[in-house]
Amino acid sequence: MTPREARARFESKPIARLATVTPGGRPHLVPVTFALDGDTIYTAIDAKPKRGSTLRRVTNVAANPLVTLLVDEYDDDWRRLWWVRADGLASVEEAGPRVLSLLRGRYEQYREVAITGPVIAVMVDRWVGWTAEQRSQGSPG
Amino acid sequence: MTPREARARFESKPIARLATVTPGGRPHLVPVTFALDGDTIYTAIDAKPKRGSTLRRVTNVAANPLVTLLVDEYDDDWRRLWWVRADGLASVEEAGPRVLSLLRGRYEQYREVAITGPVIAVMVDRWVGWTAEQRSQGSPG
Repeated sequence: MTPREARARFESKPIARLATVTPGGRPHLVPVTFALDGDTIYTAIDAKPKRGSTLRRVTNVAANPLVTLLVDEYDDDWRRLWWVRADGLASVEEAGPRVLSLLRGRYEQYREVAITGPVIAVMVDRWVGWTAEQRSQGSPG
Repeated sequence: MTPREARARFESKPIARLATVTPGGRPHLVPVTFALDGDTIYTAIDAKPKRGSTLRRVTNVAANPLVTLLVDEYDDDWRRLWWVRADGLASVEEAGPRVLSLLRGRYEQYREVAITGPVIAVMVDRWVGWTAEQRSQGSPG
């Protein structure tokens, strides 16, 4: 799968999982909404901080900007499985008008759910994709 | 959400995402099938190793056994969102008859897809769950 196709498949899904690493070296995972702008993925942190996990991903990124995001498709027919991973460098930013517009454009729910917190911006340096179709036999594992 | 409820929700889904950490401190993510045995999660690595990512998760676990897995539910109605995270210690094991039986019991596809590689066993020390229902307003981010 080309990086271009991987990026397109990534964008086709409403949800991704963001993995960061704690200062203690443990991975941390949380599902995120996102919008793409070129090769940058923006994920919102909504108005009401979740205790623990919201702070943790922000703290993690500040200490270690290496992150990865995953989008996947599951189907009982394993020939239809695919996933895309985006590796990149993350930073915490204030949500500017452009990013807010991108997020609200993708999710009508953000008309009711406020985005007043910062966003995590991930500059993707590698799009990696896998599809079961490209193998004779596939499993997600 | 109690750990018991979190575990039950986790088990209800066919797919989880496994996060490990590379020796360089970068998180790595891959979707996995799994079976639960008490508080141990077993994930199979199928017969035909995927170049790179299969080896990488095994290499990562050998260097750093701290892992986390995530199961999530997305819905356009954000009041229905939930996710469960399982933090634990991973080890790479040969797939014994009990584990093979558990995996084949959950996935009929494993009648056709061979499991001949090792499995990753994760002893979960923490089940963490979140539901939008328990908040007045929710977003996955």
